[in-house]
Amino acid sequence: MTEVSSLAMATEPPYYAVIFTSRRNTDDEAGYDEASRHMAALAARQPGYLGVDSVRGADGVGITVSYWESEDAIRAWRAQAEHAATRELGRRIWYDDYELRVARVERAYSWTRPADQGAPA
Amino acid sequence: MTEVSSLAMATEPPYYAVIFTSRRNTDDEAGYDEASRHMAALAARQPGYLGVDSVRGADGVGITVSYWESEDAIRAWRAQAEHAATRELGRRIWYDDYELRVARVERAYSWTRPADQGAPA
Repeated sequence: MTEVSSLAMATEPPYYAVIFTSRRNTDDEAGYDEASRHMAALAARQPGYLGVDSVRGADGVGITVSYWESEDAIRAWRAQAEHAATRELGRRIWYDDYELRVARVERAYSWTRPADQGAPA
Repeated sequence: MTEVSSLAMATEPPYYAVIFTSRRNTDDEAGYDEASRHMAALAARQPGYLGVDSVRGADGVGITVSYWESEDAIRAWRAQAEHAATRELGRRIWYDDYELRVARVERAYSWTRPADQGAPA
């Protein structure tokens, strides 16, 4: 699942990013996809949630970056019961390894192709 | 191109992350791939470079997170002449839009499947 919402995010720094880099195995695709969608929907309802970008390549390596207003918002999401149970499933079934980083976003720049340049064919 | 080095990164926080989220168009695949590989090789030779994770999905959305020892290291990479010229090509040809964030990594956790659990089939 590719999901991208931060390209349209309006919040100005400082805010927080949770960078989750993972390597999926090939077990339980359907269960993983369903849990992944459900977690994205739950996260979006948490206070302080700003957006998420998530991309996984064909080789199973994925990067998900979620954005939050504060460290408190990240802690509350971490403590959310269904989220905690799903993380446990991740370790038991879906992931071979992962790295999670909490970072404070200091600066942000965006760029969009001007409309008069048109989208390339 | 999926590239992932941070899963094996030894550096302890604090350090810095540059989070680059982009939407590629379908123009000039070969030129983009070659420039992408060349930039990754150049970045890896910069002082203060710690690692990079890069994933792009089939729909053209990609996330690249590069890690650096300091903001000075990020500034030096930004000023590198070939890198600056390649960014200009990115805006002229390869990208429809992108977002770049500079963030200070405060905490990091990693997890690897224990060897005795075996890799799932």
